[in-house]
Amino acid sequence: MQHAYSGAGGQVETVLFERFRAVRARSLHLIEALSAEDCQVQSMPDVSPTKWHLAHTSWFFETFVLGECASPYRPFDASFAYLFNSYYNSVGPMHARPRRGMLTRPSLRQVLDYRRYVDAAMERAWEAIVHAGLAERVELGLQHEEQHQELILTDILHVLSCNPLLPAYRDGLPPPAAPAEQGWLQLGAGLRMIGYHGPGFAFDNEQPRHRVWLDSFEIATQPVTHADYRAFIDDGGYADPLLWLADGWALRTQEGWQRPLYWSDDNTHVFGLYGVQPIDPQAPVCHLSYYEADAYSRWAGARLPTEAEWETAMTETAALQHSGQVWEWTSSAYNAYPGFRPAAGAVGEYNGKFMCNQFVLRGGSCATPPGHARVTYRNFFPPAARWQFSGLRLARDA
Amino acid sequence: MQHAYSGAGGQVETVLFERFRAVRARSLHLIEALSAEDCQVQSMPDVSPTKWHLAHTSWFFETFVLGECASPYRPFDASFAYLFNSYYNSVGPMHARPRRGMLTRPSLRQVLDYRRYVDAAMERAWEAIVHAGLAERVELGLQHEEQHQELILTDILHVLSCNPLLPAYRDGLPPPAAPAEQGWLQLGAGLRMIGYHGPGFAFDNEQPRHRVWLDSFEIATQPVTHADYRAFIDDGGYADPLLWLADGWALRTQEGWQRPLYWSDDNTHVFGLYGVQPIDPQAPVCHLSYYEADAYSRWAGARLPTEAEWETAMTETAALQHSGQVWEWTSSAYNAYPGFRPAAGAVGEYNGKFMCNQFVLRGGSCATPPGHARVTYRNFFPPAARWQFSGLRLARDA
Amino acid sequence: MQHAYSGAGGQVETVLFERFRAVRARSLHLIEALSAEDCQVQSMPDVSPTKWHLAHTSWFFETFVLGECASPYRPFDASFAYLFNSYYNSVGPMHARPRRGMLTRPSLRQVLDYRRYVDAAMERAWEAIVHAGLAERVELGLQHEEQHQELILTDILHVLSCNPLLPAYRDGLPPPAAPAEQGWLQLGAGLRMIGYHGPGFAFDNEQPRHRVWLDSFEIATQPVTHADYRAFIDDGGYADPLLWLADGWALRTQEGWQRPLYWSDDNTHVFGLYGVQPIDPQAPVCHLSYYEADAYSRWAGARLPTEAEWETAMTETAALQHSGQVWEWTSSAYNAYPGFRPAAGAVGEYNGKFMCNQFVLRGGSCATPPGHARVTYRNFFPPAARWQFSGLRLARDA
Amino acid sequence: MQHAYSGAGGQVETVLFERFRAVRARSLHLIEALSAEDCQVQSMPDVSPTKWHLAHTSWFFETFVLGECASPYRPFDASFAYLFNSYYNSVGPMHARPRRGMLTRPSLRQVLDYRRYVDAAMERAWEAIVHAGLAERVELGLQHEEQHQELILTDILHVLSCNPLLPAYRDGLPPPAAPAEQGWLQLGAGLRMIGYHGPGFAFDNEQPRHRVWLDSFEIATQPVTHADYRAFIDDGGYADPLLWLADGWALRTQEGWQRPLYWSDDNTHVFGLYGVQPIDPQAPVCHLSYYEADAYSRWAGARLPTEAEWETAMTETAALQHSGQVWEWTSSAYNAYPGFRPAAGAVGEYNGKFMCNQFVLRGGSCATPPGHARVTYRNFFPPAARWQFSGLRLARDA
Repeated sequence: MQHAYSGAGGQVETVLFERFRAVRARSLHLIEALSAEDCQVQSMPDVSPTKWHLAHTSWFFETFVLGECASPYRPFDASFAYLFNSYYNSVGPMHARPRRGMLTRPSLRQVLDYRRYVDAAMERAWEAIVHAGLAERVELGLQHEEQHQELILTDILHVLSCNPLLPAYRDGLPPPAAPAEQGWLQLGAGLRMIGYHGPGFAFDNEQPRHRVWLDSFEIATQPVTHADYRAFIDDGGYADPLLWLADGWALRTQEGWQRPLYWSDDNTHVFGLYGVQPIDPQAPVCHLSYYEADAYSRWAGARLPTEAEWETAMTETAALQHSGQVWEWTSSAYNAYPGFRPAAGAVGEYNGKFMCNQFVLRGGSCATPPGHARVTYRNFFPPAARWQFSGLRLARDA
Repeated sequence: MQHAYSGAGGQVETVLFERFRAVRARSLHLIEALSAEDCQVQSMPDVSPTKWHLAHTSWFFETFVLGECASPYRPFDASFAYLFNSYYNSVGPMHARPRRGMLTRPSLRQVLDYRRYVDAAMERAWEAIVHAGLAERVELGLQHEEQHQELILTDILHVLSCNPLLPAYRDGLPPPAAPAEQGWLQLGAGLRMIGYHGPGFAFDNEQPRHRVWLDSFEIATQPVTHADYRAFIDDGGYADPLLWLADGWALRTQEGWQRPLYWSDDNTHVFGLYGVQPIDPQAPVCHLSYYEADAYSRWAGARLPTEAEWETAMTETAALQHSGQVWEWTSSAYNAYPGFRPAAGAVGEYNGKFMCNQFVLRGGSCATPPGHARVTYRNFFPPAARWQFSGLRLARDA
Repeated sequence: MQHAYSGAGGQVETVLFERFRAVRARSLHLIEALSAEDCQVQSMPDVSPTKWHLAHTSWFFETFVLGECASPYRPFDASFAYLFNSYYNSVGPMHARPRRGMLTRPSLRQVLDYRRYVDAAMERAWEAIVHAGLAERVELGLQHEEQHQELILTDILHVLSCNPLLPAYRDGLPPPAAPAEQGWLQLGAGLRMIGYHGPGFAFDNEQPRHRVWLDSFEIATQPVTHADYRAFIDDGGYADPLLWLADGWALRTQEGWQRPLYWSDDNTHVFGLYGVQPIDPQAPVCHLSYYEADAYSRWAGARLPTEAEWETAMTETAALQHSGQVWEWTSSAYNAYPGFRPAAGAVGEYNGKFMCNQFVLRGGSCATPPGHARVTYRNFFPPAARWQFSGLRLARDA
Repeated sequence: MQHAYSGAGGQVETVLFERFRAVRARSLHLIEALSAEDCQVQSMPDVSPTKWHLAHTSWFFETFVLGECASPYRPFDASFAYLFNSYYNSVGPMHARPRRGMLTRPSLRQVLDYRRYVDAAMERAWEAIVHAGLAERVELGLQHEEQHQELILTDILHVLSCNPLLPAYRDGLPPPAAPAEQGWLQLGAGLRMIGYHGPGFAFDNEQPRHRVWLDSFEIATQPVTHADYRAFIDDGGYADPLLWLADGWALRTQEGWQRPLYWSDDNTHVFGLYGVQPIDPQAPVCHLSYYEADAYSRWAGARLPTEAEWETAMTETAALQHSGQVWEWTSSAYNAYPGFRPAAGAVGEYNGKFMCNQFVLRGGSCATPPGHARVTYRNFFPPAARWQFSGLRLARDA
């Protein structure tokens, strides 16, 4: 992580504290319409219960801020170190991920108490935290909580989709997307710099900033829309193995995929946070696996961009419209940048150990907290994942 | 089912109505210490969420009593016919059993409203119900609810066992079992009658009463105790394939069984409805699969009784002490009695279609509602099942 | 096993020796049309390679006759004790059953050498064998080999069915079945004796002969034919859950069953030992699971007979025509007869440890060696098994 | 593929024909010590039977050379188009990969006849083939056959490893590896060109040659040896999750990995083509998954090289000793080079559709046919694969 707060004066810490309050409050805002039961269920191993997200993000502050601060801190409940550790082997053993939904105790109410307890302790210890040089760690905790805020939405959407009643997470459907003309941006060949370098926050996996050579290429001004994708379906895209990666074709066959996740069988409606709604032709297609995004791009006579192309285009043109509506699959396998060093200490397990069997997505989605993503931000998921808000943007050789 | 109420006068119906109220109230009593989260979770496909049990037992009255009664009835919620049908194909499709835990909606609160709604409708329609000859159906519904009361306990015990905190379902551990001397009862060979015949209620699978020939045999006066079973463990019972059925040995190996379900790894404590407690040597061993019960009996130089032997011994001697503490595995595969006819109508799916791959258990357990079981009562579970309150009693050839 | 040979004079042993030669030769005859590759493959865990059958039946004589005889015997290959032990834990560890098809070494040629070696040793040691009282054990080995002869046929049929070329095992299709009139035999209620008692050979599981009470019943004079079963299919038998046991319906759904195993998708042809042939309407339907047999019987307004009914009908009327064409599923779960004692020694593992999760089949099939089955013979398979030559005969209450 | 033969004169074609004969003969040479049974078995889905390799490589010439040549050609057997197509959807459907081991027919003998038939047809049609411009396609077929020659060895090794007898594939163990000093080569930062460009043969996935920027780095002069890897094991490398990728740790745990594939439980011997042999400390460690190679490199304070680093080091220094003994895992996910175009026609399915979930290996192994690999050659396998001859070489940032 970059040291945005190192050596900073009191004003910066005040801003950080306000941000701490705002981010923590936002998590609670997200669950206002959910019942204790909604927050309990784990609908598949990839999904975590809302309650678990709420507790884990508090555990993060407890473990990596309060626990490393000189100020004495007494944990809310000693068992939570085990229950709400996600995957940090260096701080101890943990409850098995696929069994998070078994934890009916502590209750949601107790987890909310836990949050208040941690928040109060953070407030009391604030000066000591700053003094101990843990301001950046607090920022990491907030970035971490923002990532879980997106997961709260993706995961509860999956949970609700498993109920035949298909209940809506919230009301107030926004207006349909405005039509936008599809075009191509051209970028010339050359050495570029990608990755983060600067005073603000960035994850270790976005660094170090480094050189890459790019051949000339073109990239679409818009993400692929529902209408575009419907044409792929209607043209038999799900029935032609020559369009698909071998692993994707095998998975499509095994799972019987005929359309994106959450679409109705007649391809007219889609289930989302606002319940079942008619498909908006102009809106970006969403809930695609990498395999579907890749097959679509091949059918369209194009390809997915690499993450270096994506970042370069976004940096140099600022003309990639509608970015931030859906995460955009890139053709780049998630790996270490040249010279990558995991963050020091236990948080070094945050990103590096997942650099295998995943692809990078760029941009951000409607579920991403405002201000969270960056042009250098690297999201990553396995190619089979569909429950994220994932779509695509086309690229092609110049 | 026997027609206990056919042609009965008003007094009988009044008694039935009081019983209806009492049984329905008992279900609510069982969940007093449970949270909405506790009632939500399905810890394995065999387990149903408490909330589902509460709704399903109401659905049973709604579908098989209110729905078949002339009196007009408007269902509480049309979708519940799908959500809370267990396995009655003849009344329509149903939500998949292993996915009952996905139903965060309706909430527990709504399910409790549903119960009140059904109870009120039953009360309002009581005369019409009796007039329509549905009193026996009401009794079936109550027996059905009592069965689910036992399942509520077995299932929540499994749910809570999946939590590393191992929370207790309730307080107030009863005193330890009094020591009782083990002995053998001898019964002579001869033709016997087993199965139910009489004026009261019995399930279709307990009927018709029929002749069986029994050779002379002996049966233990006591169920096998924790102390008995501990000797089997200490003697290497879990390590000797010659003691086990082939399927049982394969399962033991695959699952790594070394002791009954819910025992601590050092064989000193057991998890139960009262939380983790020291093992009581005099109490009947519990949470055994058929395979373990069978292996124990072979190690002990004995065998499991057949269900005909069990019923005969219980009928003729009334000396089977401690019966009713644990369900007792018999060596009888669950099948149709000679001349068996499933109950007429949709409730014919209640028992008959499960007559395959299961073994009969007799007696009753600490979780069985008082007065529910009979000497002819046939409980049945697959031989691999361990989460029921299942133990054994020995028998041997005379 | 009954002691048919105990105390018998030299003449009986001579007959036994001739029988030994004949049975062993018959195994070789069965593989004449098979290649080394055919004899190698294990097409599913339930199937054993032909080569393994040939070796295992020799291992049986080596282990349980030559190895227990005073005459010194040097095993053909020390490693075979491990490779070709099937499931006798009491004589040592064994190669895992589902991995029998991995054993490319020893080759078929070496296994045939092994057979000759064992045969020669048996011949050399014959007097010592008889003197040691092992004549019954030899008979058990021959019965065992005959059972494997049937398995050689059922298993190779499955192996060949996995080849898209659907090659025939042999030529010379016999003429079609003669039409026979379906009728019912009536048998009155009463106490009967079933099970084996006599001077000849019988397996331990057929004993002891014991009393059973039978209510009056009727049994069909003919097994269910292809034409009968076709009517069940055409009437939607595979689409109506009310006809099926719950486990059967689940399996049907999971596996997509629409017809018996080995039938063509248009229900006009069937693959068998003679290759793909038109379905003979008069011939008994074959390759049914218990679930299908049970569902058919329910559809037909009848039921499967119990094994006691089957044996009684066969004994008392001798009028069960076409018996011996297909194994006939009974409704009897495979269990121990009252007073059952496993055979002494290691061969006690032969039958008893499988008395769980299986149903009894009676009669014999076109693949059963001539003279092998008896009226008391109990074959047994899990209810899901379809690769055996299994059909059914109807029964009903009188 | 590069057009090495386009416009070439008769002499080149003569050389090609000699090469055709030599490569085809080499396949037969490889199976000299194998029985029909050895050639039949598929020990896991990733493995193909030797017989299948022999047939498939002939099918390749039949389909992509003889079938596209003007000269009339009558296939050896019409069914082989289905049986021996591997994964070319554009030429028709195919037998399922995990069921290749079921094909006992055609026999090995018939497959050898098939090979002779195709060879003769190729010889007869040689002029027409050249005239039709199919010389490059012939070369592709030979490269393809050489790849399968390596697979014949890797696959039969796995088959034989499944036999408790652990038979050797061949005799004549070569002398142990000479000790070599481990050192590091330094390479400076700069733009490099990688990928194939030239007159000879190369696969489509090695092309186009393109620029990459490399930061300065160091690479080991030797692959990691058995002795090196033993130190990792002895230091608890298999027990420390902080050394492993998350997916790798999960797989290690699930599979119980404690050492490389084919090692004895006491880490003293290894099973290989020459049977069970003492581990040679100086020889390169082999049969590692990517996860193990990656964990080792982290333990050693180093990392795996990227494929661009590997190719650059090999090209610029020619000092990577012992290259060609084991395939060396690189940290590069297998993907398309910039500007990648799959080969035209059906053979376009050869490489491109596998660019997902795999990592690139470079160099070659003791099982690679002489002259087959190139410095630009990209082998690829999933990170879990261990049955290939796969090891590693360390790199580190300068």
